[in-house]
Amino acid sequence: MSFNDLFSYTIVLNSRSPRRKQLLEQMGFMVRTVKTQTSETYPADLTMEAIPVFLAKKKGQAYKEELLEKEILLCSDTMVFLHNKVLGKPKDKQEAKTMLQSLSNNKHSVISGCYIRKGEKERLFYEKTEVYFKPLSTSTIDYYIDKYTPLDKAGAYGIQEWIGMVGVEKIEGSFYNVMGLPTIALFDNLLELISL
Amino acid sequence: MSFNDLFSYTIVLNSRSPRRKQLLEQMGFMVRTVKTQTSETYPADLTMEAIPVFLAKKKGQAYKEELLEKEILLCSDTMVFLHNKVLGKPKDKQEAKTMLQSLSNNKHSVISGCYIRKGEKERLFYEKTEVYFKPLSTSTIDYYIDKYTPLDKAGAYGIQEWIGMVGVEKIEGSFYNVMGLPTIALFDNLLELISL
Repeated sequence: MSFNDLFSYTIVLNSRSPRRKQLLEQMGFMVRTVKTQTSETYPADLTMEAIPVFLAKKKGQAYKEELLEKEILLCSDTMVFLHNKVLGKPKDKQEAKTMLQSLSNNKHSVISGCYIRKGEKERLFYEKTEVYFKPLSTSTIDYYIDKYTPLDKAGAYGIQEWIGMVGVEKIEGSFYNVMGLPTIALFDNLLELISL
Repeated sequence: MSFNDLFSYTIVLNSRSPRRKQLLEQMGFMVRTVKTQTSETYPADLTMEAIPVFLAKKKGQAYKEELLEKEILLCSDTMVFLHNKVLGKPKDKQEAKTMLQSLSNNKHSVISGCYIRKGEKERLFYEKTEVYFKPLSTSTIDYYIDKYTPLDKAGAYGIQEWIGMVGVEKIEGSFYNVMGLPTIALFDNLLELISL
């Protein structure tokens, strides 16, 4: 199997995240971004892993434009869970502080769910990474909140920012998944999708 | 403790690696790079963890220029070990292929050793990360060797490149350490160094 075939496709990325676009390009893909409006609601009885998959599929179904022959639609949702409870984007600096205090000296899970579609064929998958923060001092949390942008991030932190570099002791799993794209699962699923 | 004090220092980085410089800047430091010539030899009886620490210290001792009051010298060495054996930089594409085949479907260790100095005070430390490659097909290895630059990299791969995104299933430990800088251990040690 030659990868040149796969790389002849353009990924139609249904996300405004510049980081996801950058990661896809780093993987070797051409990328076109689009954006649909969907509500981020989901059934209450879903398991942790099923929630981001459900939301990714919802975004995928909301995208009604026709895809060209050499295009693959990608919708992705990344969520942070602490003790099975969702940590969304903090609404203000005080909530960001509370979230980071809850992550301090603790393990949490980052789960990305993905939906990909080519023509009539589609696939759903997810990837989970465990992230361990060391004990974060109040000054570390305050410094991060003051100097960086926790408010637009689920769980109030970006692993690629300062606090990820000085506060994340260990991860178990894929790093890129924590950044917002499960690159290894995505690559395997894209290969399968074009071979179907 | 305010971080503004720490960030008033300039890191004098004894390394030509543009990636290390970029990571230090991402951590919030001002950086000045210098370069000394040292041989990469070490005593045969050192443990795996002690080798990069020894080499980092050697680089540190080879740097004889005086440091300014607000400067901290940093020397770092990152090594790849498979079953306790060092994997250096491959000398040609054939050796790169052999190395990647040996990493395929296997766990290996990436260890960074660091030496930091401020005035007469110095510290040595290391950080280890376990990296797990999934089974890599011949076409994956050939594609990577053909399109990317494995020859200037210990172990013949860069985790921030394509093969890291599609081939590394899991890491245990610090991601930035695999990129070449143990950011979390470095940050803690820098804080201790300026408090000494």
